[in-house]
Parts: sequence; C-alpha cells; structure tokens
Amino acid sequence: MARILVSDGMAKKAIERLKEIGFEVTEKHYSHEELSSGILNNYDAIVVRSATKLTEKVLSTIENEKGIRFIGRAGVGIDNINLEEASRRGILVCNTPQSSTQSVVELTIGHLITSTRHIATGDRKLRENNWAKKELRGTELSGKNLGLIGYGRIAQGVSGVAKAFGMNIHCYDPYISKEFAKKDDCIIHKNIDDVFKNCTHISIHCNLNEETYHLVNEERIEMMPEYGSDGMKCGRHIVNCARGGIVDEESIIRTLKNGVLSSAALDVFEQEPLNLSLLLEQENFHGTPHIGASTIEAQSRIGDEMVILLKDFFNGERPHSAIN
Amino acid sequence: MARILVSDGMAKKAIERLKEIGFEVTEKHYSHEELSSGILNNYDAIVVRSATKLTEKVLSTIENEKGIRFIGRAGVGIDNINLEEASRRGILVCNTPQSSTQSVVELTIGHLITSTRHIATGDRKLRENNWAKKELRGTELSGKNLGLIGYGRIAQGVSGVAKAFGMNIHCYDPYISKEFAKKDDCIIHKNIDDVFKNCTHISIHCNLNEETYHLVNEERIEMMPEYGSDGMKCGRHIVNCARGGIVDEESIIRTLKNGVLSSAALDVFEQEPLNLSLLLEQENFHGTPHIGASTIEAQSRIGDEMVILLKDFFNGERPHSAIN
Repeated sequence: MARILVSDGMAKKAIERLKEIGFEVTEKHYSHEELSSGILNNYDAIVVRSATKLTEKVLSTIENEKGIRFIGRAGVGIDNINLEEASRRGILVCNTPQSSTQSVVELTIGHLITSTRHIATGDRKLRENNWAKKELRGTELSGKNLGLIGYGRIAQGVSGVAKAFGMNIHCYDPYISKEFAKKDDCIIHKNIDDVFKNCTHISIHCNLNEETYHLVNEERIEMMPEYGSDGMKCGRHIVNCARGGIVDEESIIRTLKNGVLSSAALDVFEQEPLNLSLLLEQENFHGTPHIGASTIEAQSRIGDEMVILLKDFFNGERPHSAIN
Repeated sequence: MARILVSDGMAKKAIERLKEIGFEVTEKHYSHEELSSGILNNYDAIVVRSATKLTEKVLSTIENEKGIRFIGRAGVGIDNINLEEASRRGILVCNTPQSSTQSVVELTIGHLITSTRHIATGDRKLRENNWAKKELRGTELSGKNLGLIGYGRIAQGVSGVAKAFGMNIHCYDPYISKEFAKKDDCIIHKNIDDVFKNCTHISIHCNLNEETYHLVNEERIEMMPEYGSDGMKCGRHIVNCARGGIVDEESIIRTLKNGVLSSAALDVFEQEPLNLSLLLEQENFHGTPHIGASTIEAQSRIGDEMVILLKDFFNGERPHSAIN
C-alpha cells in the first residue's frame, strides 16, 4: 500500500482514516537538508502545510521510479511548493482551497475590529495597570468603505459580514467577471489604485506572486482617504491575513510612524516566524502568528478533504483540486 | 439663558451648537466632595457620562428654587444617577439610548473573535518574540450557539452580525414579546438557565440592577456545553460589554483557572478603573477599559442627541428619552 509522509501534522481523525483505508502513514518533520538528500524517494506521497518547503532543490532529488508522485498541500497557498519542478517530474500537486475559508473570514473581521477599537492595545495597557480609556477612542466600521484586494471565496465571506456591519464594499480582482461582483453588491474597480483612493479600510485576499509582491506600499497607502464616506475622520487601516510579502512591511512601519497609516493588523509576515521586527515597536500595529487556518474546524475539514484527495489519486482518478 | 455644566466632556460640535443656541456652557469636572457641597445650585442642567456620580448625597444638596432641573446622561446606563432622589426633587433625567448601539455591537463582535482566535494573546506573545502559532489554535463562531442575555437594540445588532457568521441565536429577555424574537429568527427562552445550557458563547446585553447583579456566576458557567451544535469542541466563552457587576469576576477567575471557562472578554468591571485584578494574570482573559461607546461616531451622535434633549427641555417640552 502507498506510503504517505505527513510532514507538518494533520488532524488525528484524518490520520486514523488513512490508516483504516490501508495507507502506511509516517508523521515526521524533516529539515530542508534531509529533504534535499533524497528522503522523499522512500515515500509515494507527501502532505505538507506551510512549514515544509518543497523547493526545486528538494524536488530535483526525486527519482522517477522511486519517489513521491503526489504532493498534498493541507491548506490553500502553494508558495512553498516549486510547481514547475513538480510538473517537470510528473508529480501532482493538490491543495484544499475551501476548508479554511470561514476561519480566515472570521480572523479578518476580528483583526479589523481589533484595529479600529484598539482591543489588543487596550488589553496590553490593562495588564500594565494603565486604564487608557481616554486615549483609546476608536471608530465604527459602519458607514465606511472596505476595499478587498482579491475577491475569491474568503473576500466574499468577509464582504458578507462587513455588509452586516453597514460597510460599503469595493474590490479589485482581475480574475473575476464584472457581472459576478455586481450581483454580489460590491463595487468592482478595473484599476487597483482606485480601491485605495476610495477606501479607508483595506483587506488583502489575493495570492502571493510576482504580480502581487509589495502591492501594498507607501505610495498606495498615501492614496487612501482618511475620512469615511459618512464624513467621519476614521483614518487609514490595513489588514493582511493572506500572505506575507504582499504588504511591504517597510512601508507599513514608515506610515505608522509618520501617522499616515492609523493601524496595521498582520497575520502573515515577510519573514516567518517574525522576530525582532520594528513592527513590534509600533503602538498601532498588532499581529498574530499566521493562524488564519488554525482552528479545530478548518483543520478537521482539511484532513477530511486530504483523505478524499489521496484516495482518489491512488485509485487512479484525478483529484478535484489538482493544480498541475 | 440656562446654565449647563458639562462635567465629563462632550463632542466639541455639540458644545459649540449649545453656545450658538444661547446656552451658557461650563466644561468642568468636579469631585464628589465639590458636588456634595452644593455646587449644582449654580447651574440649571448637568450633562454627565459615567465618571460623575450623582448620588443621593449630591442630589440632596440641590435647592428647589436654585439648582439643576435636568440631568442629561450622555450615554445609556444610568447606574451613576440616583433616580429616586432626582425624581423626589423634580429633576428630569434623560439618556441617549440609541447613539452608541452600533459602537457596542462592533466591540462585542471584536471581543468575541479576539477570544476565539486568541488575537490579544497572539499579539502579546509576538511582542515577547514568541511565535506561538501551535498553542493558539482557535475555533470558529460558525455553527455555534450564541446566547444573548437581554435582547434590546444592542443584542439585536449583535444577533444580525452573528447570523452572518453562521451562528444560531438564543436569547433571554423578560421584557420583550415572544412574537418579536421569533420574527427575528432567534430562539427565545423563558428561563435564563436554558440559555446557558444551550450556548457555548454568551454575551451580556442587559442593564445592571438588583435582578441582574452577578447573573453570570460559576454555577451557570458550569451549565454551558463545551461542544458546539456542529459537534466541535469549542469550549465556553463569556463576553461582557454591558456593565460590570452583571458578571461575577470571582467566578470568572475560578473557572478560567480550573479550565471550565475557555475565555472571558470584559470591557466593563466591578471596580473601574480595573487595578491589580487577578483577572490580569489569566492567559485566556482579555479586556478593554470600558470603551463600548468610545468612538468618534457614537460621541458625535450622543452630542447631537443631547442638544435636542436640552433644547426641548428648556422649551418646556418633554424630551423623547425622559426616564422619570
């Protein structure tokens, strides 16, 4: 029976199910050096999250007759997998694009309100025995324009909740049809700059690639209005629960320092784990350690979906989320 | 023209409007001792938020022919005003019940997600250079039962957003009609304990009075299920953005310590400012310093509403939000 390496963990229920089906499952995290020495020739498939980097160097050690034929990404983003090298060697890559949608939607809204109402700052000051009620005056989301960069499943979920708060939705996504976004009661822009020019609040929901690298920069932040469409001076707010690198952290630090940006909430960073960053010295920054999909529910759904992908692949079928 | 004392601040625009109308406005905060020495005999009306305590002692110094005839509470809760003594002396009390609704709704949702996704904890650990991704696994709101204690304007607003997340709403409010809550797609309970028995997440939206004092206690927290209606083990979560004292803080500390309670998020406390509380030593507690109505929008609307109340009162009309 096929040998599956699970290198970044997976829900226990899914591991048990794979074993019941008859797969030989190994749960072990190898370093990049170990992976580069040909260890993947001992397996038929690998399941990764984001910690394991399947670089060109790693994948080039795989021998045609012996090594893995399937890479399962338990999650969405595949920027830790060299897709070209995988394709060149005939290795199929699949992800689980829908399983974590709701979790990321909820975290995004949480980060948005934590910013506008200073929740993390308020808690930090309480713990310093500082009752900072006066300096923590916030602003409402209601009546403001929220700009969504990318309008896939997650952004659409964020849009639904934000509308329940009374926000107006603007979006930019070159890959969706204009008709669709109109139906969804969202103002779609052809030019990304127009989203920044119209919105006091921006949330990122696109992939990281050459096109989106440092898409949020000082120049675009300066385009944002500081007055909401309700006439209130609410300032400028950026949230990123998508991928580090889409937001230029140097720009964030500079504009938080000079007061152009009112808040930045980041779940993802250019370098992870984040360490000794100047971000951490900014009062109006708050962050979480890449926990968008870190819920019991998302991990359970991801595990269930990965079991189906592996079953289908080893039954000779093409899995529903095959990427290459 | 009437002399108005604004003792806890008010939006600048509203102060200016009052002066334009012709009122003589004094912005000054007096201590309880000063207020108790008869200072209110120099004014015709006072506007307070929550910091000024208009106790029996203070109000009993007011002379019939000279002192204030109107108390305006810029906000909702009137627990800082001795209503009986005011009524006895023929002083009208008005509040601004609708102006802060949206702000409290947004803060409540923010606190709920900050709890279930460990946002404040995640930020605190980042600032300690601790990338605590693994220990910060959270749970989704979607598919869980949210119990609302009190189902007035704020709770109804929270309900609307929570439904957008996919939560099921349970509520207890002896003062609303069953027909109303049914129409609003909310399960109404006759017995408060039934809300606790059905809900993994509880949020408080009632007034503080003898009936509601320490309504959330250890016994009721232990009634809560730890599995959501979707079968997921999400634990037990309490949010209070209403008034300190409704939640028994000793019970919160004990049940956070023994693991019965998974999180507590408090904007209001039994003693404010909060100081040296054992709450602050609990990892799964987070708090803010009573900022439910602390937004530019709410303060602006409160000011606008107070101008109308004062105009109406001094024109000899009964203001729309007169309480006594």
